[in-house]
Amino acid sequence: MPTGAPRTAPPVALRWDGRTLHLLDQTLLPFREEWLALTGAADTAAAIRRLAVRGAPLIGIAAAYGLAMEVAAQPGLGALERGAEELRDARPTAVNLAHAVDRVHAACLASGPATIAGVARGTAQALHAEEDAASAAIAEAGADRLAGARRILTICNTGALATGGEGSALAVIRALHRRAAGDGDGDTAAVEVLACETRPLLQGARLTVWELDRAGIPCTLIADGAAAGLLARGAADAVIVGCDRVAANGDVANKVGTYGLALAAREAGVPFLVAGPTSTIDPTTPDGAAIEIEERDPDEVRQVLGTPITLDHVAVRNPAFDVTPAALVTALVTERGVAEPVDRAAVAQLLAPELDVRR
Amino acid sequence: MPTGAPRTAPPVALRWDGRTLHLLDQTLLPFREEWLALTGAADTAAAIRRLAVRGAPLIGIAAAYGLAMEVAAQPGLGALERGAEELRDARPTAVNLAHAVDRVHAACLASGPATIAGVARGTAQALHAEEDAASAAIAEAGADRLAGARRILTICNTGALATGGEGSALAVIRALHRRAAGDGDGDTAAVEVLACETRPLLQGARLTVWELDRAGIPCTLIADGAAAGLLARGAADAVIVGCDRVAANGDVANKVGTYGLALAAREAGVPFLVAGPTSTIDPTTPDGAAIEIEERDPDEVRQVLGTPITLDHVAVRNPAFDVTPAALVTALVTERGVAEPVDRAAVAQLLAPELDVRR
Repeated sequence: MPTGAPRTAPPVALRWDGRTLHLLDQTLLPFREEWLALTGAADTAAAIRRLAVRGAPLIGIAAAYGLAMEVAAQPGLGALERGAEELRDARPTAVNLAHAVDRVHAACLASGPATIAGVARGTAQALHAEEDAASAAIAEAGADRLAGARRILTICNTGALATGGEGSALAVIRALHRRAAGDGDGDTAAVEVLACETRPLLQGARLTVWELDRAGIPCTLIADGAAAGLLARGAADAVIVGCDRVAANGDVANKVGTYGLALAAREAGVPFLVAGPTSTIDPTTPDGAAIEIEERDPDEVRQVLGTPITLDHVAVRNPAFDVTPAALVTALVTERGVAEPVDRAAVAQLLAPELDVRR
Repeated sequence: MPTGAPRTAPPVALRWDGRTLHLLDQTLLPFREEWLALTGAADTAAAIRRLAVRGAPLIGIAAAYGLAMEVAAQPGLGALERGAEELRDARPTAVNLAHAVDRVHAACLASGPATIAGVARGTAQALHAEEDAASAAIAEAGADRLAGARRILTICNTGALATGGEGSALAVIRALHRRAAGDGDGDTAAVEVLACETRPLLQGARLTVWELDRAGIPCTLIADGAAAGLLARGAADAVIVGCDRVAANGDVANKVGTYGLALAAREAGVPFLVAGPTSTIDPTTPDGAAIEIEERDPDEVRQVLGTPITLDHVAVRNPAFDVTPAALVTALVTERGVAEPVDRAAVAQLLAPELDVRR
């Protein structure tokens, strides 16, 4: 068991040693810290499917390395195509995955056979570095927008276990905490987090609680169903969540339960922020209705960490995500700025070429 | 394990043999069916506290028998007062508990020492019979109101495990199912239920699934966080829930998660019904803000059926209930009629003396 001793450095969930991808197996947290060593597209796709690695930006990074390892082992077009397809299909909702695979794939196609392995690795590393930088920029932009907020409600895990760098929504919370702790007024309980446990897979209870505990940021765990009532009773100053895909009109697919939080935040009159890198925006998805919602294994609902909670033959619906309409999102925080209000024009502005430092 | 074979008779959760109160231990369902034999106020209060018996009407019935057993064993004022206090304090939110205890208590005070035991028993049995009758009337009134609805979303357990008779909200669902199955059009999958698992204590996954499975009513289990998104995608024709206390203005305290369902139902344009006996209405509670919300043991959130899901030292908020404002409730279904819209006047009308068949 972790000791609970505060450590300010965020955990690392993914390491690239130049040849092998090392992933912290997130299915075992917070009880065990075990690392996987991955060597190609197939095992990386499997790790993505079973959520050993999760979080929209981080699965993009992992997939990019997965494809790079695949073409390094078999530097031909066949392996490139097969690997890209397997990785792209590992999960359907988060668009970062397809974006990352497509980017490595395109770079490989543009290179010759002699350079394909190096180009693939370099592209994956560039993407990783960009996501790290995006996380840092999101943290500061979000903390600017939420200046003064102290009690923040969130869902799922959007920290260093979900992205490059310190995270998306959780990186904003870390930045708020740093600023409040550093403002010299002696207020040590600067920021408090209400963390939804996030059934079925409990990323809030297992991962967010673990990250905040390591960071020494006070955290209170709640059942997902308790969030709306607590917001109505004034328990939070703001809600901030991550995102798995943002449509062109600003509709947001995120962890199932997010939409209910947005409704409750509006009713309570507290801001509802979505934070994520622009790699999460898909301008080819016109709106939320066009987003494919992944339905996962019924046993994720029938069991909790392997313990049966119901009859084993009961039918289940297990959507991994839901869609929050743009109109419920107070602001969309990205590394390229904050869209507020969130609508088609504001989203297009975030993607405008003159903002793209990569071009 | 239950076999899953459909049985139409509702389960029985409480039996009175004239001397001893037998309770099905609901904490063990759906995996084991074990009965408790209770003999006084203290063990009945303990069973209520640990949710071996739960559901606002059913804890009222159990408490009435608990007090009757106490005064039968010790037919004096001291035992009456101590027993009443212990039972009344077992849980704070459901008003049926206080109502039931107060009713037996008042009947005892009005009787002489020679008759107190019989009066107490008779009062408890009368209350039990009234709750059975109320359940049947609620079922028919609710099915009238929801005529034509086929896909119903609910939370917690509001069936025969929660009340006298067949339940409150779940009794309405049973009545809808009977009517549809009996309408001669051969539609065997007449009614389908979306059951929220209802963390932390999983009354939906453990109890509602078990009851519907026995009744042969199709049921699909979902994580609580999935409800809002599924409602937005048109997955249900109506939401119906029970209640633990209804204030004089129609605000409803019910299982935590209910308020979020009400917000999502309004947004989806589907009716949101609350069903319960008028014993759940407390005219002395002016509104929802005046309802005490029970905060329960943090380990209910930190664990699931004994399995730890998070760090053992994380802080927790564990409200057992939330409050849904009357304005979000489409209709309040009781044994004395349906209030629609739900407001102070409509609630007062439900309590009008000319409707009281007991007087």
